[in-house]
Amino acid sequence: MAKVTCSIRFLPLLAKDASHSYKLVDTAIEVIRESGLKYLVGPSETTVEGEFDEILELVRRLAGEMENHVERFILDVSFDYARSGVSIDEKTALYR
Amino acid sequence: MAKVTCSIRFLPLLAKDASHSYKLVDTAIEVIRESGLKYLVGPSETTVEGEFDEILELVRRLAGEMENHVERFILDVSFDYARSGVSIDEKTALYR
Amino acid sequence: MAKVTCSIRFLPLLAKDASHSYKLVDTAIEVIRESGLKYLVGPSETTVEGEFDEILELVRRLAGEMENHVERFILDVSFDYARSGVSIDEKTALYR
Amino acid sequence: MAKVTCSIRFLPLLAKDASHSYKLVDTAIEVIRESGLKYLVGPSETTVEGEFDEILELVRRLAGEMENHVERFILDVSFDYARSGVSIDEKTALYR
Repeated sequence: MAKVTCSIRFLPLLAKDASHSYKLVDTAIEVIRESGLKYLVGPSETTVEGEFDEILELVRRLAGEMENHVERFILDVSFDYARSGVSIDEKTALYR
Repeated sequence: MAKVTCSIRFLPLLAKDASHSYKLVDTAIEVIRESGLKYLVGPSETTVEGEFDEILELVRRLAGEMENHVERFILDVSFDYARSGVSIDEKTALYR
Repeated sequence: MAKVTCSIRFLPLLAKDASHSYKLVDTAIEVIRESGLKYLVGPSETTVEGEFDEILELVRRLAGEMENHVERFILDVSFDYARSGVSIDEKTALYR
Repeated sequence: MAKVTCSIRFLPLLAKDASHSYKLVDTAIEVIRESGLKYLVGPSETTVEGEFDEILELVRRLAGEMENHVERFILDVSFDYARSGVSIDEKTALYR
């Protein structure tokens, strides 16, 4: 399978307060950064680029880490697949 | 990790026509059904319930199957995690 | 514009606890019910069917009501538009 | 109501081909740009910042314009509301 992009949104529910909530999102982004995959942080989600299986492995690690930090969360993962491959740069080329 | 629910939305882009598009969505739902996980088909997404790793494995199989059928697709996967577990029944009990 | 379906997901952030969180979701569903639009409650979202403008008006009322009850929330709204119209029944006919 | 951010994802279904699909997304982004709202184009969605009602009006115009160009589409709209207001800059400050 060619490279895909995947947008990840981590939403902590039941964080103690706004500051705790931001800290949890930063922790999630740190787990994404440590994956070594190319990534871009946006206002609502972080987009990564890589092999499908690498990204699934990241999602697995992300959920496993975040359950240590918060009682309840939503983890939205959106894959964009094209047979010829997809890249972050190609998708934002016109607008950056 | 306790059981989670996960809502899966498969959106074929570049299907040949409306009928092809519906057939692709039916194929995706068939892959979900074959997983043996508890599932509920809704108007925009199908929700499954299971262990996190079982669901990741389903997502892997789903993407692998669908790339045989369509040139481009979006696959949205939304996990709802609670330390005490989450179930489809509990989340719809009041409204069914 | 023909009728569309629209899936609405209300996610309270910073609810006081799990019970408060469920109560907030119930309040959101009550606002949807009061709209008089056809609706179906699912495990992650509630889908409504109606004219585009009716649904926008519901979204406006929903946000206006929910800001009275919780400090921070995410409101996800997903429209499914087809020139020939879309209905909840048509989209779930095979699976109910 | 304080300013909110809202991430908008327009997904053309049944575009004629990949090039038509990209053109449709560019048209959608052009409608967002013309709103005069602050916006940021990302790889999967465009985030705008403004009053809730301004954004609803943009969503209305966007759907109205896009139905001229494609037979079927998904329009995902995700509001992030905080009583004290939310801004694009605040949400990406650490990572840009």
